[in-house]
Amino acid sequence: MFDKASLKVNIDPLILGALREDITSEDVTTMSVMPSPCQGMARLLCKQEGIICGLQVFERTFKLLDEDTQVTFHVKDGDQVSAGMELAKVTGDIRTILTGERTALNYLQHMSGIATYTHKMAALLEGSGIKLLDTRKTSPNNRIFEKYAVTVGGGHNHRYNLSDGVLLKDNHIGAAGGVRQAVEMARAHAPFVRRIEVETEDLDMVREALEAGADIIMLDNMTHEEMKEAIDLIAGRADIEISGNVTLENAAKIRDLKADYISCGALTHSAPILDVSLKDLHPLDGSKN
Amino acid sequence: MFDKASLKVNIDPLILGALREDITSEDVTTMSVMPSPCQGMARLLCKQEGIICGLQVFERTFKLLDEDTQVTFHVKDGDQVSAGMELAKVTGDIRTILTGERTALNYLQHMSGIATYTHKMAALLEGSGIKLLDTRKTSPNNRIFEKYAVTVGGGHNHRYNLSDGVLLKDNHIGAAGGVRQAVEMARAHAPFVRRIEVETEDLDMVREALEAGADIIMLDNMTHEEMKEAIDLIAGRADIEISGNVTLENAAKIRDLKADYISCGALTHSAPILDVSLKDLHPLDGSKN
Amino acid sequence: MFDKASLKVNIDPLILGALREDITSEDVTTMSVMPSPCQGMARLLCKQEGIICGLQVFERTFKLLDEDTQVTFHVKDGDQVSAGMELAKVTGDIRTILTGERTALNYLQHMSGIATYTHKMAALLEGSGIKLLDTRKTSPNNRIFEKYAVTVGGGHNHRYNLSDGVLLKDNHIGAAGGVRQAVEMARAHAPFVRRIEVETEDLDMVREALEAGADIIMLDNMTHEEMKEAIDLIAGRADIEISGNVTLENAAKIRDLKADYISCGALTHSAPILDVSLKDLHPLDGSKN
Amino acid sequence: MFDKASLKVNIDPLILGALREDITSEDVTTMSVMPSPCQGMARLLCKQEGIICGLQVFERTFKLLDEDTQVTFHVKDGDQVSAGMELAKVTGDIRTILTGERTALNYLQHMSGIATYTHKMAALLEGSGIKLLDTRKTSPNNRIFEKYAVTVGGGHNHRYNLSDGVLLKDNHIGAAGGVRQAVEMARAHAPFVRRIEVETEDLDMVREALEAGADIIMLDNMTHEEMKEAIDLIAGRADIEISGNVTLENAAKIRDLKADYISCGALTHSAPILDVSLKDLHPLDGSKN
Amino acid sequence: MFDKASLKVNIDPLILGALREDITSEDVTTMSVMPSPCQGMARLLCKQEGIICGLQVFERTFKLLDEDTQVTFHVKDGDQVSAGMELAKVTGDIRTILTGERTALNYLQHMSGIATYTHKMAALLEGSGIKLLDTRKTSPNNRIFEKYAVTVGGGHNHRYNLSDGVLLKDNHIGAAGGVRQAVEMARAHAPFVRRIEVETEDLDMVREALEAGADIIMLDNMTHEEMKEAIDLIAGRADIEISGNVTLENAAKIRDLKADYISCGALTHSAPILDVSLKDLHPLDGSKN
Amino acid sequence: MFDKASLKVNIDPLILGALREDITSEDVTTMSVMPSPCQGMARLLCKQEGIICGLQVFERTFKLLDEDTQVTFHVKDGDQVSAGMELAKVTGDIRTILTGERTALNYLQHMSGIATYTHKMAALLEGSGIKLLDTRKTSPNNRIFEKYAVTVGGGHNHRYNLSDGVLLKDNHIGAAGGVRQAVEMARAHAPFVRRIEVETEDLDMVREALEAGADIIMLDNMTHEEMKEAIDLIAGRADIEISGNVTLENAAKIRDLKADYISCGALTHSAPILDVSLKDLHPLDGSKN
Repeated sequence: MFDKASLKVNIDPLILGALREDITSEDVTTMSVMPSPCQGMARLLCKQEGIICGLQVFERTFKLLDEDTQVTFHVKDGDQVSAGMELAKVTGDIRTILTGERTALNYLQHMSGIATYTHKMAALLEGSGIKLLDTRKTSPNNRIFEKYAVTVGGGHNHRYNLSDGVLLKDNHIGAAGGVRQAVEMARAHAPFVRRIEVETEDLDMVREALEAGADIIMLDNMTHEEMKEAIDLIAGRADIEISGNVTLENAAKIRDLKADYISCGALTHSAPILDVSLKDLHPLDGSKN
Repeated sequence: MFDKASLKVNIDPLILGALREDITSEDVTTMSVMPSPCQGMARLLCKQEGIICGLQVFERTFKLLDEDTQVTFHVKDGDQVSAGMELAKVTGDIRTILTGERTALNYLQHMSGIATYTHKMAALLEGSGIKLLDTRKTSPNNRIFEKYAVTVGGGHNHRYNLSDGVLLKDNHIGAAGGVRQAVEMARAHAPFVRRIEVETEDLDMVREALEAGADIIMLDNMTHEEMKEAIDLIAGRADIEISGNVTLENAAKIRDLKADYISCGALTHSAPILDVSLKDLHPLDGSKN
Repeated sequence: MFDKASLKVNIDPLILGALREDITSEDVTTMSVMPSPCQGMARLLCKQEGIICGLQVFERTFKLLDEDTQVTFHVKDGDQVSAGMELAKVTGDIRTILTGERTALNYLQHMSGIATYTHKMAALLEGSGIKLLDTRKTSPNNRIFEKYAVTVGGGHNHRYNLSDGVLLKDNHIGAAGGVRQAVEMARAHAPFVRRIEVETEDLDMVREALEAGADIIMLDNMTHEEMKEAIDLIAGRADIEISGNVTLENAAKIRDLKADYISCGALTHSAPILDVSLKDLHPLDGSKN
Repeated sequence: MFDKASLKVNIDPLILGALREDITSEDVTTMSVMPSPCQGMARLLCKQEGIICGLQVFERTFKLLDEDTQVTFHVKDGDQVSAGMELAKVTGDIRTILTGERTALNYLQHMSGIATYTHKMAALLEGSGIKLLDTRKTSPNNRIFEKYAVTVGGGHNHRYNLSDGVLLKDNHIGAAGGVRQAVEMARAHAPFVRRIEVETEDLDMVREALEAGADIIMLDNMTHEEMKEAIDLIAGRADIEISGNVTLENAAKIRDLKADYISCGALTHSAPILDVSLKDLHPLDGSKN
Repeated sequence: MFDKASLKVNIDPLILGALREDITSEDVTTMSVMPSPCQGMARLLCKQEGIICGLQVFERTFKLLDEDTQVTFHVKDGDQVSAGMELAKVTGDIRTILTGERTALNYLQHMSGIATYTHKMAALLEGSGIKLLDTRKTSPNNRIFEKYAVTVGGGHNHRYNLSDGVLLKDNHIGAAGGVRQAVEMARAHAPFVRRIEVETEDLDMVREALEAGADIIMLDNMTHEEMKEAIDLIAGRADIEISGNVTLENAAKIRDLKADYISCGALTHSAPILDVSLKDLHPLDGSKN
Repeated sequence: MFDKASLKVNIDPLILGALREDITSEDVTTMSVMPSPCQGMARLLCKQEGIICGLQVFERTFKLLDEDTQVTFHVKDGDQVSAGMELAKVTGDIRTILTGERTALNYLQHMSGIATYTHKMAALLEGSGIKLLDTRKTSPNNRIFEKYAVTVGGGHNHRYNLSDGVLLKDNHIGAAGGVRQAVEMARAHAPFVRRIEVETEDLDMVREALEAGADIIMLDNMTHEEMKEAIDLIAGRADIEISGNVTLENAAKIRDLKADYISCGALTHSAPILDVSLKDLHPLDGSKN
């Protein structure tokens, strides 16, 4: 779960942006037929097997529209869910439920899709000692949600953005005049709490990165054999990250490598949603309130 | 292409939001090794077959960071592209290219993924007379990009949001006291430029919607047989939209129905990205400038 | 009344903008003489006959400054009010009441002015079957308030903005190469939930618009005779909107035309305010609290 | 004219807000028929006699949509204009002209309406030595435009907002315990560059305000006779502002009073617009460019 | 204390900006070790003698992160505090306290530093009849806090910004063509509630300013002797402000001048902080809750 | 220098905020005497010895008001400057120069003050091998400027904010159940590119931190003797940061310790400004333009 500070400071403005995208004047359908408030309840139903994620964002969306909306959850983020399960009950003004439904579900389905996809890929690596990492290949203005969903699915976070991690790629190395110089320049300029990562494409670069004292070495798009040699060469002197079009289909092949991390853009840029929906919205009788 | 007005008024703030997500203080890696500006060039390469979309957003991302960045395109939105094709050249301060690369590609890959997916599904419907529609199941704060990508891929847009279209669902109908009342209330309240759509789940509802004078009737989650009967019943007196978990896998089955539209959430919520990348970034010699 | 969603998502930022316009550091007069909170009450008095509108915005202005302010209304939006009537009681920190008074009243007076003006013009059309429409000629950053006030006064809303309605004017028709082409291009490009309106200036254009299948035909600045002919020609095959400098003074002349709508910019751009004011602000005794 | 600083810092965000109100995704009509840019020109025509005001805001609206739009003015703010006069030529992408037209005109018409109304009232006071003042009764989020229009029409500005002027009303006086105490508290608390104004309702209050050393004394809703007596009493020891429902109809009666200022809310809250419009928009031939 | 209106309208956005500066995704340290809420308490301790200021902003910072945080103060703004004093108790989710601590203290320390510095300088002027003024030399985006802290420390506020006070400097005078012309132009253009101040550098300018009817005359960077002469010359016909690099070290020398005000940029641009800190943060037992 | 990306994405909004703080409607003094643009030039003069910093922010402030303003610098950030030196020439509309002067100088003076103070303290450590660090004790909404100024003055940056560095304090350790657990939890939760720092108060904690594998150990408020022992104990197995009320006065005493870093809040929270000012603003003759 996000803590209240992240929610108030970073997440609320994004959800409000999403709501403004969907409601530029009013929900004209709902306001046509329900000019006055009316208490109601709906069930959040799961329609597909997977890992649920984003319940707090789902709830927050309704709360931002009307603080009196109540959501009672039967599951929590990270739980395995399956088709037919009731995940929550939403109670409040039916108009708020109808107006907020799509935005709330868009978040929940997307985040659960990522958690589910991550979970499947992490399962392939289980027992291998290799940790699964996300990347910066996220949907614009959704990174905070997507990086969280990766952790809920059993993955780990790489750097959050360009400002909080150092990753020296070939252009950086070229500009600096060599791996050694690049690492030195990064140590001199970057806040000292950063670990320095170097992206390498062959064994020579791996060697240079090692000598330059890189904290983390990324093996980028190498063959399985090259990766094995590189790992032997590094021999624990730096953390090792494997990168390069890893997908659910080929992740298992990497299990036997003695790497520390494997990063995967697909977790955030290509996971299909998990299907959940709001059902059985109905007015509450006075007596049932 | 978006016109300049949309760009300045609606799109720039979203791209700036995405850039702020990725750069909270500075690009610490790039600033470590390149403290001064340096002219350079990179190639935008396609790595996968599909429909390219979002070139203008790709360019705008760099322009917002530094108006002196130049992008020369060899293709245009909607073009069929394939692995290995060079799509564009990007010229400018190498630092800007490195700093903007990820955000620019995140937009381009996502939008091209949607255009490609849409194109495949539209192809299945070609010749059938049925038009492919998107939904409001979009990634939060990305709707304007995604709806555009659907049109580039050969689809059409449903309503943009809750404020610009009337879609009466069962809860609205329940609240109004019946289909007829709901349609009447919508005609009385909604701006008169709206067409009124009613979501129906069985033939009785279709009949009621027809009698109420609905402009569009959605057949939601009906069986193939039910849809046929409904279409016969409607007999051209309203536009017909088919809805309900349509995917690439099952879209073809619907071809023979005499419907006007088929809507598909997967276009925007589950299309995998199209892989494109920036390559061969290199400094430009003074003489080459 | 606006629902809570519109209030939170679209209206609050506008009211806050208005408050920031009026309070750039503090209310220096009030803070000079009342350094500490003090409970008080004031009466909202009507000083002129008309239709009251905007009570919720009036209240929200105070609530945004201090959520503990209470407003008890004796009337509701749309009620006929007259000079001397007490419309509401406002209770809370006197400082908040003094600081928010002007902004709250600016909204209330302006919205009530529009509702009152609309009401007068709608009365002239009563029984004629012609509905009164607003336009996009609104005060910048006040459209959501003004369009609502028109409905409260008995008018109806035309499209909300450029994105949610299609209105083909002569330049659009010229660019498309003719009325038929313009309507076809709009049907192909615009979301299919839009009805297509064509602005016509003479009978030839009316004829073309009809043939092109326009949903709505606007008769713009035609003579009474031309309008009669046009209406006969259309003969129910499209909705008819009359436009062109309609005011309170000349609205009655149009009564006998068999049009569906008449649109009027003056409703929102030239209605004078309705005079209401806060009176008798006084501290509350401890015992009366 | 506004200087560039006000434009960039305070006015641009308001115009952008107005444009976002009118364009939530795209101008769907224009984009339907003109998918590509096309140079064109239109004429800004005056349709009613009055004082023109807001030309810079009119131009800025188009420039914010597309910096390549050019506006050539034949008049300047404050000029007397009459029906039939061409005020300016607008050149640029026809799409931008169509998309920005309404917002640009909404500003221009509203500001010109205020300047015209102010000009008429100021004319009634000409030669009397009494200056005409505006109030804080402005349209929300339009004060900067409206206060400027008042000066263009020949009026003067009262305080801009609650933070930059001290105006002690009866509630402030009551809270302070008397006029003298209120003035003293304001002198002690408010920045010393403020002049202190006291609102008075009878001769006793005028006397107290004078003794307390008020810089400005407002005579609020007094009879003509009371005002005369008050003015004699003040005898030049403080500036005098007359207030209370002054309109075009009754302004002339006040001419003979030896007051310094007369303030009038109607200038900004009830002035009808001045009718101006864009006409003859047509594509430019390549040769004419 | 700020009133609620200033807090909601002007201060909250600034505090939120400061929090967003410090929390771009989450407080990663705190979220690592405390994934769940936990009630706790901390003491706000003073570590240095001075004047405390900003308690309300300190509290608001926590409240904006989590409205359930409680702060109980033992002192109020303006109180003399000394090393070792407990100033307040903060109770709430330990995570919120840890996350908000630095931002809350940054405000409190900075505002208290200014109040303390102002208090020292005001003490040097005590009994002299000269009031101490601040300037516009404030930390960007902190003026509202700093101007308030000056008043808490015993100083007074000069104009808040460029829009709410007239101060004619040599360039303004040069542009106008002389002091008299400049004052006349200011009286004609500026809202009439402004007092007009003229900055003078020698006796000739003082003379001209007097003749032009300046309300306030600033003696800028004059020698002690020049100031004496200028003050004799003015002889009470205008308020007198002394300006020019006044610091704690030289303020006492000015005591014997018969000036009204002395302004000092150092109050806001160079006051060191007052050291306060949060200590003894500890979880609360269930039984103690 | 900041790169263009930081400028556009992170810095412009802050400068605009500062300008809005100073100009809420217009610069009333300047607009009174100069209703029309007038080209002019001014000199940026140094009035005090120190390190100049913030020239780009100074220039940007004017450019944001009017892109045609030109600043020609004779020095660059980090240069030693002294009283009397001309640092730059500013050319443009005199009105822009007058309006932007204060905000531009507020940034320049504050940043130069920090660079100067940092430079002095760094000089005391020169040759010792100890690097000088800043902290998060910055002025709200000014961190990006202040952290940059520290590097210009010869210091280094600690973590930027709560999201990009892990620093385990006693409360975190208490919540985790011990140093070892806290470090493990941070390694599990935080992005793997973070180095883990532990704050220690005595030798026992140092020992635990070492055993837990902390990357950086902070010695907080220890005596000189304790620090020596701790440093011997660590023996190069972790980076060492010394913390605790280090000031210009006592920094030299620490020179002989074999620490890696010493952090100092005073760099950003208590550095007095460096005095610089704009002088000799004068109109440019047509011939000189």
